[in-house]
Amino acid sequence: MTNGIESGRILLALTGMAPEFWIDELHKAAPGRPVTLAPDGEVDPSIHYAIVWKQTPGLLARLPNLKVIFSLGAGVDHVFGDPDLPDVPIVRVVSENLTRRMSEYVVWQVLDHHRLGPRYRAQQADRVWHEDRDQKAAADITVGIMGLGELGRDAAAKLRVMGFNVTGWSRTQKQVEGVTCHAGDDGLGPFLASADIFVVLLPLTPDTHEILNRDLFQKMSKRGALGAPVLINAGRGGLQNEADILAALDEGLLSAVSLDVFQQEPLDPASPFWSHPKVTLTPHAAAASNPSSLIAPMVRQMDAHERGEALINLVDRNAGY
Amino acid sequence: MTNGIESGRILLALTGMAPEFWIDELHKAAPGRPVTLAPDGEVDPSIHYAIVWKQTPGLLARLPNLKVIFSLGAGVDHVFGDPDLPDVPIVRVVSENLTRRMSEYVVWQVLDHHRLGPRYRAQQADRVWHEDRDQKAAADITVGIMGLGELGRDAAAKLRVMGFNVTGWSRTQKQVEGVTCHAGDDGLGPFLASADIFVVLLPLTPDTHEILNRDLFQKMSKRGALGAPVLINAGRGGLQNEADILAALDEGLLSAVSLDVFQQEPLDPASPFWSHPKVTLTPHAAAASNPSSLIAPMVRQMDAHERGEALINLVDRNAGY
Repeated sequence: MTNGIESGRILLALTGMAPEFWIDELHKAAPGRPVTLAPDGEVDPSIHYAIVWKQTPGLLARLPNLKVIFSLGAGVDHVFGDPDLPDVPIVRVVSENLTRRMSEYVVWQVLDHHRLGPRYRAQQADRVWHEDRDQKAAADITVGIMGLGELGRDAAAKLRVMGFNVTGWSRTQKQVEGVTCHAGDDGLGPFLASADIFVVLLPLTPDTHEILNRDLFQKMSKRGALGAPVLINAGRGGLQNEADILAALDEGLLSAVSLDVFQQEPLDPASPFWSHPKVTLTPHAAAASNPSSLIAPMVRQMDAHERGEALINLVDRNAGY
Repeated sequence: MTNGIESGRILLALTGMAPEFWIDELHKAAPGRPVTLAPDGEVDPSIHYAIVWKQTPGLLARLPNLKVIFSLGAGVDHVFGDPDLPDVPIVRVVSENLTRRMSEYVVWQVLDHHRLGPRYRAQQADRVWHEDRDQKAAADITVGIMGLGELGRDAAAKLRVMGFNVTGWSRTQKQVEGVTCHAGDDGLGPFLASADIFVVLLPLTPDTHEILNRDLFQKMSKRGALGAPVLINAGRGGLQNEADILAALDEGLLSAVSLDVFQQEPLDPASPFWSHPKVTLTPHAAAASNPSSLIAPMVRQMDAHERGEALINLVDRNAGY
């Protein structure tokens, strides 16, 4: 039935994201598979698959023959915002393109702090020629990664190639080559004492909501190469207590932050983050993926599912990610 | 005789660089070896080694027992500024620390252009939240490296790990794993057509003086990810025609440049480079090395030389590097 007109219809249920890109890519990847932006009437038995980004609550519950939900993002917290989420398998995006782009962002931002990017840009603006000869080498720096899924492990490997020491923390114990892995509540303290630059790639769940708060910053090692720890969050805005981040920067608990995500996106034009001299801000662009790299694996899973094969990259509902 | 008082005396012949760092490191690395900043009188037979950075012309020629010249830098063009350079072996710095730091700079700057660093910083200043979803992946970008010595090869390997395609150009044909290598005058055109971002790590010689000029920019591929090629020069300022770079930026022959080196350093506070919106400027800090990592290999070679062993990392006087 692959790409045949009898293939299940796809509902594209997006909020705050233009659908055109995704429709085009779906038509290219699965020319025979009908795509709709809204169900026909109260029930629509022809819809078997939903590709979602912050779907309207209750929408999916009205589909009697929904077989699989596909999250249009590596994180799936946006899917769980729906209290009437039907009990069907949820598939996360696992895309080499997305993983590589996230590692580009992580290595880019770690190097920007390590190599004094903000300081040299300020010096350029002031026409000041001053080299800091006594800089630390990457081998003197430890990068701590919070979250050791696909994204965290790839970033760790690339940071190691660049010469950094790498430690990691995750909910359950992981084994990653060359990375000192801490886990769970007991492992958090030792992890926070282990690193100079912290990279956050955690899923957003009830357990990790606002985990990046004053209490956590106070437990971070103060031996950081830049005088105090650097925080880089490319996970979700919901992971961070934003008032605590601003206070920690002003008090010197953190020396600098790179934030790609925020509690409210787009970020309010009045937010103090825009103009804070210790903040590097990107507009949720860390792992901007090209649509084809996300859609193709979804269509392959739909085809496989219709051939009776098992789904892969399933979300654990209990863990919430 | 290692570290004994009969070991050859070291002359530290530096111009425009404070000597204190280097004296301290020499005392640490070779406690018994006398170090001087100026020869005693017209001739000083006790000086066997000179560690130089832009030495005063004629100074070394007055030393009757000079055995080896050590360049305090990966490039040795500054050594050849002396018309009375004595005919003794010249040793270049080969330091893993220096090589790694240069690769940090190269990967940092390539990623900063690839991931739209200048654009996102401008958007942050303007409080604009706008993600460019249609960004190219590293696999869509080719980085061309001019100069395939220790530094160029290490940078190439790390750029490949980050997912970039890499091509290279050098005076003589090289073989580098995974890198399409061009060589010599005939190879320059194909090389310039091959890449989107150009990284310059060439030695400065009469052949490469101002090789980065309008004629070269015109031959560069215009299919660059950012609309026109990006130039990153971490070699020597003498490689670049600075008026041509400014004109090329204004005409759109180049989309952006990262310059760590300049014809005159420190850069004149009145230079247009400081405030040009398409210029990222660092103060010859790309491979800022810690002194110990440079001095230790020199002392090892002095000791080995006194045991009758052969010198390594020698400069080819005919090639000029």
